[in-house]
Amino acid sequence: MSKVQNIKGMRDHLPQAMLLRQHIVETVQRVCERYGFEPLQTPVVEYAEVLEGKLGDDEKLIYRFEDHGGRRLALRYDQTVPLARVVAQYAGQLALPWRRYAYGPSYRGERPARGRYREFYQFDADIVGSASPLADAEIVALLTESLEALGFPGFTTLLNHRQVIGGIARASGLDEAAAGGVYRAIDKFDKIGADGVRDELLRSGVAPEAAAQILAMVQIEGEPLDVLDELSARLGADERAAAAIANLRAIIGALGEMGVSPERYRVAPRLARGLSYYTGLVFEAITPHWPEGSLLGGGRYDELIGQFAGRPIPTVGLAFGIDRLHDVMEELGLGPRPATTATAFVTVFSGEMAGASLALARELRAGGVNVLVALEPSGLGKQLKEADRKGVPFAIVLGPDELARGDVVIKDLRSGEQRSVPRAEVLAALGAA
Amino acid sequence: MSKVQNIKGMRDHLPQAMLLRQHIVETVQRVCERYGFEPLQTPVVEYAEVLEGKLGDDEKLIYRFEDHGGRRLALRYDQTVPLARVVAQYAGQLALPWRRYAYGPSYRGERPARGRYREFYQFDADIVGSASPLADAEIVALLTESLEALGFPGFTTLLNHRQVIGGIARASGLDEAAAGGVYRAIDKFDKIGADGVRDELLRSGVAPEAAAQILAMVQIEGEPLDVLDELSARLGADERAAAAIANLRAIIGALGEMGVSPERYRVAPRLARGLSYYTGLVFEAITPHWPEGSLLGGGRYDELIGQFAGRPIPTVGLAFGIDRLHDVMEELGLGPRPATTATAFVTVFSGEMAGASLALARELRAGGVNVLVALEPSGLGKQLKEADRKGVPFAIVLGPDELARGDVVIKDLRSGEQRSVPRAEVLAALGAA
Repeated sequence: MSKVQNIKGMRDHLPQAMLLRQHIVETVQRVCERYGFEPLQTPVVEYAEVLEGKLGDDEKLIYRFEDHGGRRLALRYDQTVPLARVVAQYAGQLALPWRRYAYGPSYRGERPARGRYREFYQFDADIVGSASPLADAEIVALLTESLEALGFPGFTTLLNHRQVIGGIARASGLDEAAAGGVYRAIDKFDKIGADGVRDELLRSGVAPEAAAQILAMVQIEGEPLDVLDELSARLGADERAAAAIANLRAIIGALGEMGVSPERYRVAPRLARGLSYYTGLVFEAITPHWPEGSLLGGGRYDELIGQFAGRPIPTVGLAFGIDRLHDVMEELGLGPRPATTATAFVTVFSGEMAGASLALARELRAGGVNVLVALEPSGLGKQLKEADRKGVPFAIVLGPDELARGDVVIKDLRSGEQRSVPRAEVLAALGAA
Repeated sequence: MSKVQNIKGMRDHLPQAMLLRQHIVETVQRVCERYGFEPLQTPVVEYAEVLEGKLGDDEKLIYRFEDHGGRRLALRYDQTVPLARVVAQYAGQLALPWRRYAYGPSYRGERPARGRYREFYQFDADIVGSASPLADAEIVALLTESLEALGFPGFTTLLNHRQVIGGIARASGLDEAAAGGVYRAIDKFDKIGADGVRDELLRSGVAPEAAAQILAMVQIEGEPLDVLDELSARLGADERAAAAIANLRAIIGALGEMGVSPERYRVAPRLARGLSYYTGLVFEAITPHWPEGSLLGGGRYDELIGQFAGRPIPTVGLAFGIDRLHDVMEELGLGPRPATTATAFVTVFSGEMAGASLALARELRAGGVNVLVALEPSGLGKQLKEADRKGVPFAIVLGPDELARGDVVIKDLRSGEQRSVPRAEVLAALGAA
């Protein structure tokens, strides 16, 4: 055996990492269910042609392979294209608008790099079949509530609209073909700064005056409605841009009615987002505590989901990248960070006394405590060491003396403190501990 | 686009099915955590050679493919071989004995058939690094508690030991080479009956007298300890069989001390289980309400996990097949069966009144209720129909009259009944509903 290892870019997640990952997923799932989102699960493998023709430049990243029957298959690239397939395939069974969430791995056929994995986990939430700004606002509210529930400090969601950027390009005298280059250049604003974007715009053939105008507009800052007013003054004559600004106003109005704090979002005309399929609102959550990039993002994409069904199905959604959120939470020390699932380790004094330990463990479990029991009566010191090595907070010692007295010893393995507790009060003592 | 469909044998799970599947997984996970099991997640893709050489005849079922770099890869066949890899690869980070659970999809490169899928989900729980009968008993206790928590009626776990079957074969005058055929024949007992097994034994070259003896022994029934006594009387001279019987006695003793009801298990010398890697205890849970097969099973396999690490690492475990459990629970009408995640659908009377509906939804969510809000003020009848179609139990109507009176109308969409409730009491009314 030469390769007793995982494939590079496809990671093993050991228990401590998994506990935080599960906490993230459970938290986001609970918020999604509060909003009435329903779970969907699609296979990890799809026909390659289902995935092809939707991703633009990213198409080369699809993880393709052939099966034994020579069929062209692929590991899914995201959960969005499978959603489009499901919406077409089960049209009769799904009532639109449909709020669905989905959690699982997706794949990239590229070399792994820092923070970029071949296998990565995403939690997606989308509202399929509604063009209402209430749907856009609900997705932003769900993002906000999720990041708050996870304890992220000081985050903000940047809001923009594809047709605000389109309007900026058009107002700068560029046609639709050139607008793509403008999106791509602006998308790098936070990485390469205003000068970098200017250089890129000039290189892609934008005239210096137009580039200056674009840069001025994408840097407009202030209160959300003030930014929209200023954009309106500059772009109001452009019909699509005016509609986009009105749409953002409606979304922001709904955010207020949904109780999303105004601290939590702002309008950022510089936000482009890479994926070519967005058609309306785009957004990204950022925090100054993690300057390296956004926490997550999403937007409205009214064309992709209906592609298989053969009719437009307006959709808005977002994806929580579990790997990214986990890395950031680890870095920032957020979230509960237990070393293991168990709260208590019940020792076993001897083979004859195993029954007493097993009975105690059973009682504690019935009371809702996660309990490990020693599997060998191998000496108290060794058992306490095992409990400590696993990161279990408390050991419960139950020997013949304790049994005779009707109590147990609870040892706090972090502080080393220990105390005798009557047998009947162990559950309460652990609850209070 | 010709193939807007899932790959055969790899299923989409729509919301209603997913809600039951998630209930199963969450229930089993909660029980596992009560016993201190820790989560592990390994990639869906492995190097093919990691999986090869461990499955015997089943090796041909590995779902193999080549990636673009020409590497021989495979979708994982189960969660057991990846566990063996992890135990070798992260030896320094894992304290044995280690209780780990794992949930996710596995794959078979075979034609799908009824109840057999190319992609299927398993929830595995294993205790790695302990030969103690307490570990075997804990796995059986965990199985019992899980099936009880899921509400399975009248199930029983059949217990046996590989060296009981080995002893039966030896006592019938067969050597080790012939014993394999005996396992395979006995494994089909519940499908083909005693006569079928006899025919199969004779066909594989077992003498008629030996076949009769084997059949008599595998059909011994009764109280667990009585069955063991009878086996002991017949096989006691065979050292390995005697040790196996003593092991089963110890496991059964521990089951009693763990509080597992004696109704829940019996010793069944006819239980073989297919997988070639079992070395000790084998078990399967069955219920007369599902005569088509077992619910799930597992056993002790002391050789596989240490194969990569290069030293014996005794291990016992089981796998909950989520697809099977889901199918059986559907068939038997077990478990909670909500149609959707939401309990209430809040209607929206008009664009101007959306704020009042959104504020109510927010309050209910904060109180722990899952709430859908209408995305369009599209007429009350249409909104109620949408709520009903989605299977939401209650609609909450909040129009100008209700707003003026300070109340809402709660409509039970199953019974059609409706009543006015003061605005401040909606949460309580839904809680009581």
